[in-house]
Amino acid sequence: MNYPSPSPLLTDLYQLTMLAGYFEEGMAERRASFDLFFRTNPYQGSYAIFAGLAPALQYLEELRFDNASISYLESLKIFTPRFLDYLADFRFRGSVLAPPEGTVIFAHEPLLSVEGSLAEAQFVETTLLNIINFQILVATKAARISTAAGASTVLEFGLRRAQGPDGGLSVARAAAIGGIGATSNLLAGACFDLPVRGTHAHSWVMAFDDELSAFRAYAKSFPDNCVLLIDTYDTLGSGLPNALIVAKELRQRGYELLGVRLDSGDLAYLSRKAREFFDAAGFPEVKIVASNDLDEHVIHSIRDEGGCIDIYGVGTRLATCAGDGGGALGGVYKLVCCDGQPKMKVTSDITKATLPARKQLLRLVDPRGNYEMDVIALVDEKLTPGMTVYDPQNPSRHRTIPEGVRIEELRRPVMTEGRRLDHGSSLDAAAKRAKEQLSCLPTGSLRQINPHRYKVAISPGLFQLRRQMMEQGE
Amino acid sequence: MNYPSPSPLLTDLYQLTMLAGYFEEGMAERRASFDLFFRTNPYQGSYAIFAGLAPALQYLEELRFDNASISYLESLKIFTPRFLDYLADFRFRGSVLAPPEGTVIFAHEPLLSVEGSLAEAQFVETTLLNIINFQILVATKAARISTAAGASTVLEFGLRRAQGPDGGLSVARAAAIGGIGATSNLLAGACFDLPVRGTHAHSWVMAFDDELSAFRAYAKSFPDNCVLLIDTYDTLGSGLPNALIVAKELRQRGYELLGVRLDSGDLAYLSRKAREFFDAAGFPEVKIVASNDLDEHVIHSIRDEGGCIDIYGVGTRLATCAGDGGGALGGVYKLVCCDGQPKMKVTSDITKATLPARKQLLRLVDPRGNYEMDVIALVDEKLTPGMTVYDPQNPSRHRTIPEGVRIEELRRPVMTEGRRLDHGSSLDAAAKRAKEQLSCLPTGSLRQINPHRYKVAISPGLFQLRRQMMEQGE
Repeated sequence: MNYPSPSPLLTDLYQLTMLAGYFEEGMAERRASFDLFFRTNPYQGSYAIFAGLAPALQYLEELRFDNASISYLESLKIFTPRFLDYLADFRFRGSVLAPPEGTVIFAHEPLLSVEGSLAEAQFVETTLLNIINFQILVATKAARISTAAGASTVLEFGLRRAQGPDGGLSVARAAAIGGIGATSNLLAGACFDLPVRGTHAHSWVMAFDDELSAFRAYAKSFPDNCVLLIDTYDTLGSGLPNALIVAKELRQRGYELLGVRLDSGDLAYLSRKAREFFDAAGFPEVKIVASNDLDEHVIHSIRDEGGCIDIYGVGTRLATCAGDGGGALGGVYKLVCCDGQPKMKVTSDITKATLPARKQLLRLVDPRGNYEMDVIALVDEKLTPGMTVYDPQNPSRHRTIPEGVRIEELRRPVMTEGRRLDHGSSLDAAAKRAKEQLSCLPTGSLRQINPHRYKVAISPGLFQLRRQMMEQGE
Repeated sequence: MNYPSPSPLLTDLYQLTMLAGYFEEGMAERRASFDLFFRTNPYQGSYAIFAGLAPALQYLEELRFDNASISYLESLKIFTPRFLDYLADFRFRGSVLAPPEGTVIFAHEPLLSVEGSLAEAQFVETTLLNIINFQILVATKAARISTAAGASTVLEFGLRRAQGPDGGLSVARAAAIGGIGATSNLLAGACFDLPVRGTHAHSWVMAFDDELSAFRAYAKSFPDNCVLLIDTYDTLGSGLPNALIVAKELRQRGYELLGVRLDSGDLAYLSRKAREFFDAAGFPEVKIVASNDLDEHVIHSIRDEGGCIDIYGVGTRLATCAGDGGGALGGVYKLVCCDGQPKMKVTSDITKATLPARKQLLRLVDPRGNYEMDVIALVDEKLTPGMTVYDPQNPSRHRTIPEGVRIEELRRPVMTEGRRLDHGSSLDAAAKRAKEQLSCLPTGSLRQINPHRYKVAISPGLFQLRRQMMEQGE
């Protein structure tokens, strides 16, 4: 199934008023470059996972104003007929630089660089931010949860608490990039070709006269795919023994019980009890599935206490990107070049100043493949060992590019003249990329609390340009 | 424009496996009742605002499995051909009780009661929760923000940080019910007939050679709708004086500058300075608009410090329902009656036990129109003054129904045999209802921190039935 592209109206009114203004001023065709970036890594963590590129490029390629949209804009009575005519032929015909999905990224790095006419490059701001902000936020949360779960499997169960229907749909896609590759959401399975998982609810058990009848009926309908929810009445007293009866009956019919699910109580304790119980009864292959407000912190503490959980079902806290300053990624989209002139937002607060001009995003990799630091440089600048690079937020702190590092460009052209150059890597490939790149970060970077901070520096050329522009008051 | 109804696949896989199980067991046509409720008021507040009914009913009325959906389910290879045939004719033909949107509601209250065949009433769980949970959460956040803003106007600007495209779209609808009736989101304006608002971004200013040229160009294009963003370079040093030049030029042409917007810095201080500046210059009608990570707490403190803000633009924290245990509403959907038998989830933790049987939701109103308490009662029970009612979470606490109260049923039938009985009140009417009802709550209920807790009780009949079912272990 297709994942539909957003309407051209899925944007802020001010994108249209600015577009109209540029059009009326004769400025619409000036050349402009915008960078999309964020200023703080989410969840008080040390990294983020890039995601959302494929839907963003699909939006850019398919963007056009249909008659219904133009009629609506006309009804607002703030636009001229000349401008409404112009919209009928309006397309995104610009180019985009970006890393592949699944790339490990950091605060301040230019992620998407969008180049084109001032009109088209400005107009797409809100929709790009809407798509990319949320996808990065979910992919990063998924990577944190997946890291905490170690060798256990994690499933995405968040639809019922997600922020609207599409919140629920796009969660599943980004979660797959972050390493949570199966979902309960059928529409996400159909749209993104993801495996779907799920069993039954407490209401299934309550609809029968007793728990054992409910378990037997479920096993009858799904003998080779049977996971039983054992906490409707009394997990240890009735759920476990009833599940064992069904496991034995299934085995007599040539099937094996796939697992049992815990959805309440002390999951570390109950999972150890369940594991011992099935092991002792000769069913060591029965999987223990757990759910109930799980996130990376809860999973970490369950594992710390020796919980025996094979599969974690993660819902609300993944779907809503909860906790630790989550909920939203503060991604922004800033003009960095117009008509060949570098541009920056000058402010007394250096943490809010933008980085001017068109750029490269470079990663320094040591001979063993470990990541040393990232450097943001001007587009035509060449980095060499021994060169001094600077902290973007604190000009007095600088470092030297070490000898022997390999310098990799993280981004590539993904769109030119409004056409996609490729249709993105598969979600599997993106998930693999994320996992591999996370393993190349310095020790301590994956720690949940107070992680090691990976270094992101700016090049000497960018440092000089920014200083000069700040001194001029632009 | 139409707001599209979700796909039948926008649900958890287990809804389909349970549906198949009921079908194969011959249980699909049993009569069942489910209640949708939540256990904790969001944001550590004392109330919530009911929202999401119209899209929920639209979903129920339009629910059907098209060929593409059935083909996808077939491809999973877990369902029988007989069941897939059954899906082609599957509809929701049940009935629904609910309060009108904008009703003030509380934890534990049955909001939607869905009655029908076990098959249809179970199947719709996930999608109803996805719609209603998020709409209630946003409407409640909007009511909190709107209350904090007092007589000032509030606009919804959250699209760029919302959780996906539809997260952004449905935010605007629910925010309108909660009292934030204008949005920057054009698609929401088109779908829900909401007024749209917005001006220009920092990039507009940066695209010109200087700030004054940018302001003049904007005023030229939108002379009767001109709000200028004054913090790109230096709010007091350049933004304000340049805006005044444009205000004077507009006046010479017969127009008035509508306002200026602040998007950074100390909003209380800067808004006082801006107010004094325009007042002294003879422009007391210029509005001060402010944005930048606002929510009810920030707005409250700005007003406390004498900030002079006429219009608040609220984005991220509204769209993501941030803060104070927000992010997600823990709404659940529980079987309360099956084949005429009351059902409940029995658990040792009384805070998680459900309330069995079909119910009424009643509000006791004193002679002056103030709300005394709400009572959840059995469907055929009659409440009278002097009767003892009980705290649902603490059986030892009880109260007496006072003399002279008026007893109002909060819910009405909104769907029978799968057809809507009406298409819901307008968003304006819902917003008006929310505002009026909030004013009838006991003093202190609207306080942001540690509010007065409104009483929700259960009737003697419900109290007895629950005790009896818990003693029987169901």
